[in-house]
Parts: sequence; structure tokens; C-alpha cells
Amino acid sequence: MSIREAVADDWPRIWPFWHRIVAAADTYAWDPDTSEEDARALWMAPGKQVFVAEDSSGVVVGSAYVTPNYGGPAADVANAGFMVDPDRTGQGIGRALAEHILRTAKDDGYRAMVFNAVVETNPAVKLWMSLGFEIVGTVPYAYAHPTQGRVGLHIMHRAL
Amino acid sequence: MSIREAVADDWPRIWPFWHRIVAAADTYAWDPDTSEEDARALWMAPGKQVFVAEDSSGVVVGSAYVTPNYGGPAADVANAGFMVDPDRTGQGIGRALAEHILRTAKDDGYRAMVFNAVVETNPAVKLWMSLGFEIVGTVPYAYAHPTQGRVGLHIMHRAL
Repeated sequence: MSIREAVADDWPRIWPFWHRIVAAADTYAWDPDTSEEDARALWMAPGKQVFVAEDSSGVVVGSAYVTPNYGGPAADVANAGFMVDPDRTGQGIGRALAEHILRTAKDDGYRAMVFNAVVETNPAVKLWMSLGFEIVGTVPYAYAHPTQGRVGLHIMHRAL
Repeated sequence: MSIREAVADDWPRIWPFWHRIVAAADTYAWDPDTSEEDARALWMAPGKQVFVAEDSSGVVVGSAYVTPNYGGPAADVANAGFMVDPDRTGQGIGRALAEHILRTAKDDGYRAMVFNAVVETNPAVKLWMSLGFEIVGTVPYAYAHPTQGRVGLHIMHRAL
């Protein structure tokens, strides 16, 4: 597997799993009916650094972005988002993307990384904690999970 | 003082204090050099409900917005932002705007309100707590305050 910066032509290879993940409505706080055009604008917005993970056959199996979480006096704290093709979970792709993004963010001068809305039932919470993130707090009942009922959204933080 | 929905023509009356507050770079996590055009796009974005407070002479002395904090399964939690003309602080304008926004959000079916990035040195923290908000957590050292050094950003929450 290799990780490289995404180019515009990667989008059609990201969209199938992007759509599947957001439509499942159990990990992302975006409209499950988000159109492909709106999805592209969200994921590959100007100012976001976007990466893709490719397997050894050149198939895009995951993507991630890093961007300032806020602006002005808070612009040196990064935010990031991650998606792994649901057919390819359990292969270390998420961890590899996260390690890449953490290195990139640190090299770019960010002093910390924050995730603003991690669904507390998301298995990725364990991955983030194994990578040194801590739960700063949890907004209670903020996310209507399709099978778990109302669950909290964690804010997670790691210094870089 | 009265509070009403903002119209497009209100923007030129919001911008002077908007600019002054954001340029001070001690309460908002936006670029202090934000242009008027970008500021308008931020404050009066489609999907935001925007209000203004007018004094008895019809002078706009404050503004606030309410909008979903996130989308999809999290869209029934509101976010809001508030600005009061720095020349008119201490007159209850912020509290009146906040009470109005809390009522509006509840009437519109939001089940809670969240502030994502309250600078911990902001005097408004006391106001939010007096209105029933709690500090969910604090992202440490996330904001470079011009006189206080690096300070934290509170995430604050109130059920509606």
C-alpha cells in the first residue's frame, strides 16, 4: 500500500466508498443523501490537503484530508478526516493514513490535531486513542445512530 | 431594544463591529484580516438564520446567527454565534440575543445548542454558563490570544 497526494482525477475512485460510508449514517455528520458534487466540494475543498491510499494494484482503498480546524489565532491546530473502503477494513489502511496525516501535519507546522465530531460508537475511536489522541469531551446525544439510538460526539485531541 | 431577523441591507451595519471584533483576534477563530466580502459570506451564509438587535433609535448594536452545527444524523443540534458592538457592551444585548436565539432554536425543533470554540478568556463564558450552558471540554492551547498567550477553546453545550 502507498499513500500519495490526491489529484482531481482520483475523485471518481473516492466517491463510491465516500457515498457508501456517508449513506450508512453511522460515522459521519453529513447528509446521507449528499450528492456527488457536494461530496466532492466537501472532501476536496480548496485549502484541504487530500491524500489517497492505493493498494499494490493501484486501487484507491482510502482517503484522508488535513486542513486548519479554525482560522486566525487558532489556525495552527489541524483537523483531519478519514475514510477507508468498507470492503477493505481491518488491513491497517486507516492507521497508515492516520500516521501519514499526523506526520504531514507536524511537518507543516501544526501544533496539534483535533477531531470535532467522532461518533462514540465508531470503532475508529480505539485507533485514535492508540495513536495518542485523548477525548477532550463528549457532546451528549448529539448523533442519531441508525441502530444504537442517540449517541455522543467525542472531541478528540493530540498534540503534535 | 428589539431583535428581528436580519435582511441583506443590514450587513453594512453589522460589518463595522464584526470587523472590529474579528480584527481584535481575542474571541473569534477567524482570520483577523477577513475581507468584508468573506465576512458577509461567513456570517450570512445560506442556511444560517441571522438576527440583529436594534436600539430604540434603530441602530444595529448586535447580531447573532443560528444554524445546524453538523449535518445528517447530527443536524438537530444547533450552533450559534454572537457579536455585540464593543461600544455597547454591558447593556444586556448579548443576553437578549442569546435568549432570543435559544427560544428560536427550540421552536425550530433543535434539541440542543453547541458552541464549538469559545475562547476560555472570553467574558461571554460567564454569560453562557448563566444561561445553562456547560463546558463539555477544552481543547488546550488551541488559540493564540494577543495578550494572554496560548489559551484553550471550550466546547459548550446546552439541551433545549
